[in-house]
Amino acid sequence: MTTEAATQAGATVGNIDRLLRPRSVVIVGASEKPGALGAVVLANLERNDYPGEIHLINPKRETIGDRPCLPSVEAMPEGVDLAILAIPRVAVVDTVRALAARKVGAVMIFAAGFAEGGEAGLADQREIGRIAAEAGMVIEGPNCLGSVNYVDRIPLTFIDTPLDGKSPGGVGIVSQSGAMAAVLAVMLLARKVDLSFSVSTGNEAGNGVEDFVDYLIADETTRIIAMIVEQFRQPARFLAAVGRARAAGKTVILLHPGKSSAARESAATHTGAMAGDYKLMRAKVERAGVIVAETLEELGDISEIAARCTALPSGNTAVLGESGALKALTLDLAEEIGLPLAHLTDDNAPALRAALPDFVPVSNPLDLTAQGLVDPDMYYRTLAALFDDDRVGTIVAGIIQTNPATVGIKLPPFLKAVKELKPSKPVVFAGVDEGAEVPASWIEALRAEGIPYFPTTERAFRAVRSLTVAGARDGAVSSAAPLKVPALANEHGVVPEYRAKALLGPIGIPFPKGQFAATVDEAVAAARAIGGPVVMKAQAAALSHKSDAGGVALNLSGDDAIRAAWDKMHADVARYDASIRLDGVLIEAMGARGLELIVGAKNDPQWGPVILAGFGGVTAEILQDVRLLAPDLTEAGIVAELNQLKQAALLNGYRGSPALDVEAAAALIATIGQLLLGEPSIEELDLNPVVLYPKGQGVVALDALMLVR
Amino acid sequence: MTTEAATQAGATVGNIDRLLRPRSVVIVGASEKPGALGAVVLANLERNDYPGEIHLINPKRETIGDRPCLPSVEAMPEGVDLAILAIPRVAVVDTVRALAARKVGAVMIFAAGFAEGGEAGLADQREIGRIAAEAGMVIEGPNCLGSVNYVDRIPLTFIDTPLDGKSPGGVGIVSQSGAMAAVLAVMLLARKVDLSFSVSTGNEAGNGVEDFVDYLIADETTRIIAMIVEQFRQPARFLAAVGRARAAGKTVILLHPGKSSAARESAATHTGAMAGDYKLMRAKVERAGVIVAETLEELGDISEIAARCTALPSGNTAVLGESGALKALTLDLAEEIGLPLAHLTDDNAPALRAALPDFVPVSNPLDLTAQGLVDPDMYYRTLAALFDDDRVGTIVAGIIQTNPATVGIKLPPFLKAVKELKPSKPVVFAGVDEGAEVPASWIEALRAEGIPYFPTTERAFRAVRSLTVAGARDGAVSSAAPLKVPALANEHGVVPEYRAKALLGPIGIPFPKGQFAATVDEAVAAARAIGGPVVMKAQAAALSHKSDAGGVALNLSGDDAIRAAWDKMHADVARYDASIRLDGVLIEAMGARGLELIVGAKNDPQWGPVILAGFGGVTAEILQDVRLLAPDLTEAGIVAELNQLKQAALLNGYRGSPALDVEAAAALIATIGQLLLGEPSIEELDLNPVVLYPKGQGVVALDALMLVR
Repeated sequence: MTTEAATQAGATVGNIDRLLRPRSVVIVGASEKPGALGAVVLANLERNDYPGEIHLINPKRETIGDRPCLPSVEAMPEGVDLAILAIPRVAVVDTVRALAARKVGAVMIFAAGFAEGGEAGLADQREIGRIAAEAGMVIEGPNCLGSVNYVDRIPLTFIDTPLDGKSPGGVGIVSQSGAMAAVLAVMLLARKVDLSFSVSTGNEAGNGVEDFVDYLIADETTRIIAMIVEQFRQPARFLAAVGRARAAGKTVILLHPGKSSAARESAATHTGAMAGDYKLMRAKVERAGVIVAETLEELGDISEIAARCTALPSGNTAVLGESGALKALTLDLAEEIGLPLAHLTDDNAPALRAALPDFVPVSNPLDLTAQGLVDPDMYYRTLAALFDDDRVGTIVAGIIQTNPATVGIKLPPFLKAVKELKPSKPVVFAGVDEGAEVPASWIEALRAEGIPYFPTTERAFRAVRSLTVAGARDGAVSSAAPLKVPALANEHGVVPEYRAKALLGPIGIPFPKGQFAATVDEAVAAARAIGGPVVMKAQAAALSHKSDAGGVALNLSGDDAIRAAWDKMHADVARYDASIRLDGVLIEAMGARGLELIVGAKNDPQWGPVILAGFGGVTAEILQDVRLLAPDLTEAGIVAELNQLKQAALLNGYRGSPALDVEAAAALIATIGQLLLGEPSIEELDLNPVVLYPKGQGVVALDALMLVR
Repeated sequence: MTTEAATQAGATVGNIDRLLRPRSVVIVGASEKPGALGAVVLANLERNDYPGEIHLINPKRETIGDRPCLPSVEAMPEGVDLAILAIPRVAVVDTVRALAARKVGAVMIFAAGFAEGGEAGLADQREIGRIAAEAGMVIEGPNCLGSVNYVDRIPLTFIDTPLDGKSPGGVGIVSQSGAMAAVLAVMLLARKVDLSFSVSTGNEAGNGVEDFVDYLIADETTRIIAMIVEQFRQPARFLAAVGRARAAGKTVILLHPGKSSAARESAATHTGAMAGDYKLMRAKVERAGVIVAETLEELGDISEIAARCTALPSGNTAVLGESGALKALTLDLAEEIGLPLAHLTDDNAPALRAALPDFVPVSNPLDLTAQGLVDPDMYYRTLAALFDDDRVGTIVAGIIQTNPATVGIKLPPFLKAVKELKPSKPVVFAGVDEGAEVPASWIEALRAEGIPYFPTTERAFRAVRSLTVAGARDGAVSSAAPLKVPALANEHGVVPEYRAKALLGPIGIPFPKGQFAATVDEAVAAARAIGGPVVMKAQAAALSHKSDAGGVALNLSGDDAIRAAWDKMHADVARYDASIRLDGVLIEAMGARGLELIVGAKNDPQWGPVILAGFGGVTAEILQDVRLLAPDLTEAGIVAELNQLKQAALLNGYRGSPALDVEAAAALIATIGQLLLGEPSIEELDLNPVVLYPKGQGVVALDALMLVR
């Protein structure tokens, strides 16, 4: 975390306190009309006994209920913490200006029609941001639904929000979409998951999700931050914040639309946010330690597990089931979604073996049959054995509930096991027969013991999978120092292949043996020096598609062939584009055939550097068989990533072919990573193809294209 | 349907009536002990006022409650419809024999430990089947949980089963797993989906799922058949039954574990069933018209939609939503799972445009914003426009429910629209905020109008997707006649390439120009006759891996090259395997390069003929980029299937390469299909590779391997 970001975060926390924990509130556009925004805001505060001052502004009324109304912002006292604007869009900018003059701490703006509504709206939104920055005011919105402070029981929203008297804290919600913030709150409260704050940031004229994440990291009552974000405006700041959250033992869970091209288009018109590149964002936030939820369902499911369990699911899962068919279905789903299951057998799990009747083999998933109805203690014994088994990181019980009587037989040994044995690993209870009549008291009893209750096993498996995979993610950071290439200072724009290779060769990127030749005689001499058949490649910064222009000649042997190729190449390129003047040609040794990879790199202006690595060629392009890698991954981490490719089997000796030198590919990728970290001026870099040879024989990058800013 | 199958079905229906609608029941192993199987069976019958005779057998008691006990099977009257065996495994075989002597119509066996318990159990199970077949008795089980007749309110199971007084009919459940039958019943009843019968077949010593499907097809009260099956024992009979079900307007939905290798292993030990090939099964049942559910969740979801909606979802879906974030999330999920969405815009949907306020653009998913709270009639207008739009086949409403007051505003216009406008397309209601307090009366009101209520949108989209894709499946049957190849009668076992090509060339499979040569002189003459460079391929039935044995020589020109290749090839093959004697060699023209496909065929002894077609080569093998096709698909249907391949983009002019002759590939595949249908003796057939050329230039099968039984 940079000093600047720390200062910003520190400043923000204090200011946001005035928004989320206001000692005084003014409702601009107060109303008595049931259902009107201003009326609901007031009703929410009154119903929950808001202890601070409430000021109302409505020029058309003297009082609302028992409370006096002020005619204008100018008439209110200075230094009110929070102004809630329940007024039409057209009045907002002037009101914000007036509020700044009255030294208001924070402004919440519900009205829509700003950045998402066209040019005029965008200009107004910018003006709001400008005023707020100048005055040091916090802005929530416009186009937001407000916030709820569950800790101090202060609802600041036009959504009807009854707050019960429960002890608050736990999950803090930050969402650009107000609807989704409200939806997630309903979902989690229905599952009796405690909340700390819920904030909807809307168009983010002044403050964005990054500010509120900082606030929740500093907030002691918040352990989990659940986010719905369509566009991060300050990615680097968010990534730094996630690092702080992890250090503080807080879990950050993110739902981010934009996987599909259609969703990205949709986001462009929603809350005025331009969507970034989903895959890049995902690679970066996951590297930082964020748990990414695939769906809204899963966001709720993961949040509950994180909030309720003693530890996050990790390692291999054991499934306690009661049916052979469920066992087979679970094996299907586990394979499909990539949920790792512990390998448990009669032979390798004696304690589990001893817990079960003879006719129940040890397996995972377990099939305890209906035996639990006559021997309920079996659940206790089985759980005890699973608690003690270090190969089991997580336990999911898929139980057939049937009816209250059956639940009444099966649940007591469950609860007893968890109460008495206090497992350090998460236990998730999932009903197999969704909708079975399960008395609420049983579900509450499970929750009281830190066991989430899931309506279906599928949901439990998917959420546990996402958490397990996130937990297993390699967080190791390469100790190699960033690489500097001082000569890069002379480059800008597209760097032609021969110069790129001259820059990258010395830092350890393996290229074919070769020489640049500015004249045909130099080319002949170069071919002689290299020996054997050579390749000739036309060189010019403006020529980015050499092959299309006839700028590549393969397998040339002898002086005549070189001279002929030189002439033909110059003629072909001239015909392709008369404006291109070649710097010369690159003469290189022909390499042996091998498996073609692609290694690319990009320094995203928003998210920073990232490397793309995967299978090259047309087929792979269609299949998108690539991974996005952080530039500071260790070589071991890179190997692990390459082994996640869909066609990874090709790397490791498929069907009698030799195992390939994946380590050499990883070393090349690691070097590119260090280069990106050392030379931020490199905007893009393509090594395509990188040819991979059998183990011990290394890799060779045949081409290099670089873009320097 | 064959006459034989019809007779079998007819015979079965009558017999199964004695099982599922018994006029008299005997409980063998009757008991008074609470929780004992025999006791629960009796309690179930008494509680639901079973009107038939009940006989009890227990040699140790004179009475149970008010009812007399008989000492043995021999003491009971002849011709009782159903015997329920609540006795230990060891007593079962003798009891079944005794029951046959008393002319009992059907026997239900709960005990486990038969085929799944080892050799002795398997022998006993076979004996039960033999006795039953001889006596014409129906057998349910062993290792089953019994059945429930919801139509006549007769529970025949040891699971505590209260039946309410609702009008029954609708979904019939057939499951090999008793636990899953009970689970699905609980799930559907919780959703107020009416059931007709639920049957668990267990080990299927006498009767299997096929028998009960036949019964439910004939049963008037059953409209939907929901199945959980781990292994079909009579696949052909089941496929024929599905055809009859469709003709009768009944929907068959199947959940079948076994996708993963681990699940297949698991199934081998469960209910004694050996698992078949999941993909083959799936291709066959889907071709017959079965809707395959991916998970238990989805089985329930699809069953409810099928049971409740006026029509099955089909065509393109329109999504009525209220949030921009939900819209983007829905686009993501729709792309991921393949849910087709109708393309709706301000320009192409004037009626919808007119239904919406100005600031809500027409799109799909729609984002109606929170406007419905102030203008609830908007839901009515929007639905009305969607009902009338022929581009919309299915409507999913993803609604933010919040609390009872909000639901009370939003739902009335919904219900009014459906009630008044009576749409002919399905409408599914899905809550966005799962767990929101929604009064049961509203959910009931939706259901009364034929609108399923889903707890989450994700569930609704997945179920609608599965139904839509099933509905869009090409059911067209090729009108081409099966092909006969009389000379096949002379073949058995492995047919070497040259003979396979000689048999298949005349029916229209394109091979390279070539000749078989039994001597080196014949080979030289053949090469001259063909002209140009040729390929030489060693020929012998025992030589199935030519390349490995040095049995392929490419690009031979001139007599000397042919003679040298002949000698070398014979020497290489002899060194590879001295026992192989070559019939000779095949001399063929070298073909041009093209895209390599694989076309295979198999006549499965259980499921019948199926064709495999897809991309060839190592990469494709890893990616499993193939489709399984029915042999009676039309050529258009085959083209559509090929375009579903993951790398289908390669077929249609990818990146400037010419579009390929997919029609020619389809014609080849169709010919293979007709061959399989005409010549059932062909057990396996491999054309690998089949080289695909640009449009108009056809395909050529380079190799042919055939196995004839």
